[in-house]
Amino acid sequence: MNPVKVGIVGASGYSGEELVRLLLRHPGAELAAVTSRQYAGQSVARVFPKFANYPRAQTLRFSEPKSELLAQAAQVIFLALPHGVASEFAGPLLDLGCQVIDLSADFRLKNPATYREYYGHEHPAPEMLKKSVYGLPEINRAQIQSAALIASPGCYPTSILLPLIPLLKAGLVKPANIIAASLSGVSGAGRKPEVDYLFVECNESARAYGVLRHRHLSEIEEQLSAAAGTTVVIQFTPHLIPVNRGILTTLYLTPEKPFAGAGETESLERQIAACYQAAYGREPFVRLLDSKTLPDTKNVAGSNVIEIAWRHDPRTGRLLVLSALDNLTKGASGQAVQSMNILCGFPETAGLI
Amino acid sequence: MNPVKVGIVGASGYSGEELVRLLLRHPGAELAAVTSRQYAGQSVARVFPKFANYPRAQTLRFSEPKSELLAQAAQVIFLALPHGVASEFAGPLLDLGCQVIDLSADFRLKNPATYREYYGHEHPAPEMLKKSVYGLPEINRAQIQSAALIASPGCYPTSILLPLIPLLKAGLVKPANIIAASLSGVSGAGRKPEVDYLFVECNESARAYGVLRHRHLSEIEEQLSAAAGTTVVIQFTPHLIPVNRGILTTLYLTPEKPFAGAGETESLERQIAACYQAAYGREPFVRLLDSKTLPDTKNVAGSNVIEIAWRHDPRTGRLLVLSALDNLTKGASGQAVQSMNILCGFPETAGLI
Amino acid sequence: MNPVKVGIVGASGYSGEELVRLLLRHPGAELAAVTSRQYAGQSVARVFPKFANYPRAQTLRFSEPKSELLAQAAQVIFLALPHGVASEFAGPLLDLGCQVIDLSADFRLKNPATYREYYGHEHPAPEMLKKSVYGLPEINRAQIQSAALIASPGCYPTSILLPLIPLLKAGLVKPANIIAASLSGVSGAGRKPEVDYLFVECNESARAYGVLRHRHLSEIEEQLSAAAGTTVVIQFTPHLIPVNRGILTTLYLTPEKPFAGAGETESLERQIAACYQAAYGREPFVRLLDSKTLPDTKNVAGSNVIEIAWRHDPRTGRLLVLSALDNLTKGASGQAVQSMNILCGFPETAGLI
Amino acid sequence: MNPVKVGIVGASGYSGEELVRLLLRHPGAELAAVTSRQYAGQSVARVFPKFANYPRAQTLRFSEPKSELLAQAAQVIFLALPHGVASEFAGPLLDLGCQVIDLSADFRLKNPATYREYYGHEHPAPEMLKKSVYGLPEINRAQIQSAALIASPGCYPTSILLPLIPLLKAGLVKPANIIAASLSGVSGAGRKPEVDYLFVECNESARAYGVLRHRHLSEIEEQLSAAAGTTVVIQFTPHLIPVNRGILTTLYLTPEKPFAGAGETESLERQIAACYQAAYGREPFVRLLDSKTLPDTKNVAGSNVIEIAWRHDPRTGRLLVLSALDNLTKGASGQAVQSMNILCGFPETAGLI
Repeated sequence: MNPVKVGIVGASGYSGEELVRLLLRHPGAELAAVTSRQYAGQSVARVFPKFANYPRAQTLRFSEPKSELLAQAAQVIFLALPHGVASEFAGPLLDLGCQVIDLSADFRLKNPATYREYYGHEHPAPEMLKKSVYGLPEINRAQIQSAALIASPGCYPTSILLPLIPLLKAGLVKPANIIAASLSGVSGAGRKPEVDYLFVECNESARAYGVLRHRHLSEIEEQLSAAAGTTVVIQFTPHLIPVNRGILTTLYLTPEKPFAGAGETESLERQIAACYQAAYGREPFVRLLDSKTLPDTKNVAGSNVIEIAWRHDPRTGRLLVLSALDNLTKGASGQAVQSMNILCGFPETAGLI
Repeated sequence: MNPVKVGIVGASGYSGEELVRLLLRHPGAELAAVTSRQYAGQSVARVFPKFANYPRAQTLRFSEPKSELLAQAAQVIFLALPHGVASEFAGPLLDLGCQVIDLSADFRLKNPATYREYYGHEHPAPEMLKKSVYGLPEINRAQIQSAALIASPGCYPTSILLPLIPLLKAGLVKPANIIAASLSGVSGAGRKPEVDYLFVECNESARAYGVLRHRHLSEIEEQLSAAAGTTVVIQFTPHLIPVNRGILTTLYLTPEKPFAGAGETESLERQIAACYQAAYGREPFVRLLDSKTLPDTKNVAGSNVIEIAWRHDPRTGRLLVLSALDNLTKGASGQAVQSMNILCGFPETAGLI
Repeated sequence: MNPVKVGIVGASGYSGEELVRLLLRHPGAELAAVTSRQYAGQSVARVFPKFANYPRAQTLRFSEPKSELLAQAAQVIFLALPHGVASEFAGPLLDLGCQVIDLSADFRLKNPATYREYYGHEHPAPEMLKKSVYGLPEINRAQIQSAALIASPGCYPTSILLPLIPLLKAGLVKPANIIAASLSGVSGAGRKPEVDYLFVECNESARAYGVLRHRHLSEIEEQLSAAAGTTVVIQFTPHLIPVNRGILTTLYLTPEKPFAGAGETESLERQIAACYQAAYGREPFVRLLDSKTLPDTKNVAGSNVIEIAWRHDPRTGRLLVLSALDNLTKGASGQAVQSMNILCGFPETAGLI
Repeated sequence: MNPVKVGIVGASGYSGEELVRLLLRHPGAELAAVTSRQYAGQSVARVFPKFANYPRAQTLRFSEPKSELLAQAAQVIFLALPHGVASEFAGPLLDLGCQVIDLSADFRLKNPATYREYYGHEHPAPEMLKKSVYGLPEINRAQIQSAALIASPGCYPTSILLPLIPLLKAGLVKPANIIAASLSGVSGAGRKPEVDYLFVECNESARAYGVLRHRHLSEIEEQLSAAAGTTVVIQFTPHLIPVNRGILTTLYLTPEKPFAGAGETESLERQIAACYQAAYGREPFVRLLDSKTLPDTKNVAGSNVIEIAWRHDPRTGRLLVLSALDNLTKGASGQAVQSMNILCGFPETAGLI
């Protein structure tokens, strides 16, 4: 089978670089085009010495981002661009017959009003919101298969949605009073030269930010509401910690039926386990942990896996669910490649294990 | 005025070392005795090269921990010992006329039943639980002044109690449904040679632990119940992150009166500000942050300060309170020295600024 | 082709774990046995959750290290054991017909007297020193092909020998006055629960150690002497820095012919480039950097590549050569798998890209 | 005694911030003016929350840098400005009668030709090079006492000069073939928003930079030449490692008289010890380590101390000298305050212990 030709627009940021890493070694894809205004004309090997041992990195050069050239060179185009810029490319590329996997937030919302509320202006192409598929393979595999435009979810949303959606669908936890406390590695902030993300400002530092209205809230709540069949409003608190890669999320949930004693704890935990087993038991990228292990970002670094664990607290009646993933892999580029695998008919794990 | 002679039992761990740091430069105290089985016979300068420029560190040698010798050498004795060991020393030292400031958990609880529940055995000296004063200076300053035995609080409890007690006393938040999510630096685990705390196991790692029943829960809930005048049960989730020093706690609280609109948010935040101002406005070690700043562990590292900030979320109605402190200073040894200052009639900031 | 069955003795340390990582995804090898006294009876997935998504990790259990069982289960055996223990297993396994790749220092020296000098006792099996092949594939590929016992080099030696050997062989640098200053990540110290390697002791710390007589000196000098055809004595200074993985080595060398002016700098740098190109131009795991790039440990982390750069200093006449590698991959387990690939007739990059 | 009024021009960078830290708690100085174009109008407490508990930080506001206003407000002015900018302020401030302590490289060289060679343009005020005193207190204490313009040395130079100067003056080591290999924490790069110093680019990274001609070389060689009484040319290799603060320097030296045997090692090490004892035995900020201890950046972090250790290698005949200091304290702002203490007649340790 001929390899599928793929392109990356905006390949010089962290998620772009991670796409390069994954696609250079992908058995079914050929990296045919990478764009970067800053590096146009330079080879991938020169910009990212770490990839220099791939022959393709020696020959492939960064180019200016031009839709026509991209569409000539590649069938599947990944957009690894800042918010607002992706939507400028998606339309032309779709018109030219490409399949587009967008890693930005531009096409993740279904409701243009929510977009306006969170992003402060009208969506530039609201009709495309309807077309786009929210690219969470474990949840939307069927739609991804035939999508022209995939809106690949963000890192925080993935770490919250994958653990929560099965429990909400099964009615095991209440859709009210959900709290998601997340810790993120610094690569989540992108390769932006800002003082806040300098080594000295992040090392030996732990801090919350955006505690009331992080933009990711909008897609999280839209997806949770769809799963629960009712409007879901959650508390979401992101924190920045000094690791390169990784998101650890702790979810505080209320079981639908009150559980209190130790016997009931066991019974609830078994129900949760069964629910997750049914939802994810065969998923190659979901690791359901046992009762002795808790998620740890170091166990998912560089991999496309999300770890999930759960504990019922008989003292408070609450259910705690914890997840860990790599924000650049399962939280961004790995997940986007997983969607590409589905789209192109590759084994879903191709290039990801 | 002659300096007060002080001793440290168990001075080779992280909180012991921090006591040495603070007491060597203390204007009113003379470090007269330090004990360590491992280092007995060696000078402080030899064991801790970083203190070698203090003349006292050259002459003072570690000795075996013997109550009689300690009582001859010093008036105030700090116990920086593992749980369970401190209580062996406290009684004899008190009988010999010393004032004891214990940094372990041995005398922090008032209720022997709670002790048994959390520590798995009877308290060895339950009558001493009554005598001990919980050494949180901002809350119990008066009792500390005349205490013979001070049970200096742990790092997690300090980060939770100082922000919460004034709000509970003022009836501004409900005592129910409190969640405390804490991130701790690795020095909180002590200088123990265990694989879990090796550099490679902690670097690039974020993980929760003890999510259901951390031992510190017992003292936190006992103190909160006393402040609220009713039994308080909280959800407490500690996490380990790769920083040396620091605890960041995010508290999820329910305002006593429901607030929803933006105007009400402002009103609640003003009430909280007034409450904290009344409680801590003159406290030298409490930093109340403004509406633009959130706590950051790097801003309290090496200092005895706790930072506190608060935000009302009009979307969820919840009140978020965040705090940051250095687990070895305000969370352990700095706070113990602050208590010593009160006990000895020194300015409360002596040796701590 | 049937997969080659491989076993790992001592699979619970860092280099053992790295072998597990590489061999689980190796296209030509089947991980047939892993031993660990500590974890005997537990599955690989249970001990290393990060590998749990490999089906083999679910079924394979750690066993007690017994030569007979190992020899029944596997053809190629990796020994990832502490110094001195490996030699107890190598002999019996060879007698049972296995091919042995030893990651310890036990069989790296040819001269038993050097062994006695550096390790303080007689070598337990001096006759096996003759049989063993020093497993540096770029240098000894032919001998590795038919070796029964491969002594896989250490991390420091690899970072020094690969850059130096071609220059010495070509007579481009003097064998005298060589200085090698190396920085090592903490995983180089192994998964040993010692206070010196705790997170808090290593974070924010940079320190030299073993500055006069590190044990690796013996194998470095023996190999350099062989390459130079004369006794080579070097200055080797290892330093510990707070990274998980990586060795950065800076070599201070004297060109055989004195070079001084800027034109001569260019000429020398071209000669060095030509020498390296001849030696390593086709090597898949050697990355020769250009005049604008210097080695960086983050560009080799998790990969089997060594980066090499060189600069002539016209002010001092010295030649500086710098290298970077991952101490657990090219510096240990990756290199051992590379040797296995040669030994078994696999493509040399199998499982390593 | 009235406090001396001091000002800081450029107080928002890392060395400016460190000056603020040291001067806020200084017993003899009053921080009377701080300038920053970026923060003009804001209080110190608002810009640096970590200092908010000092009353002075609440009242003192950043202002625009204007020489007249500075000279009215303060007697001693610290310049914590980028290279090239400091010289614009020094002249006017001196003319207005201030004493100036410059932390930049603008006045560190005596030879304008060297300045031109290293900085690429003529020195803007060569006559002031003659007036300035190189502010290394342990070496130039007498001249500092009466200096109007102090050029406070850089971090790398301090880490190299303090260990080397006494040995060169005593003729114990040869002035030829000196190699200085230094590791620096990231704060040495300043608070500049550049991609190279982002957390993700520095964490898990070790790399050399500026290996042939770092600008600090010029002042290092000028000072060493003065000490040795002959032109000294050294090899200097800086490396960047992931710590916030700290420089570790390893010096490779040749003893003036060849030493080879073990007895001679002892004799040389005793001579070196005697030399350092004579030079630094009473210096409060030089810590001479014994034969069991090596310098470690974590033992000097936040302090004004430099640690020095030495080892003779009988195998190579070389003498290794190692030093550690905090690049922001002894390597910049602490040393500048030490000079201020000398200048103002304060105890030299005032505000620094």
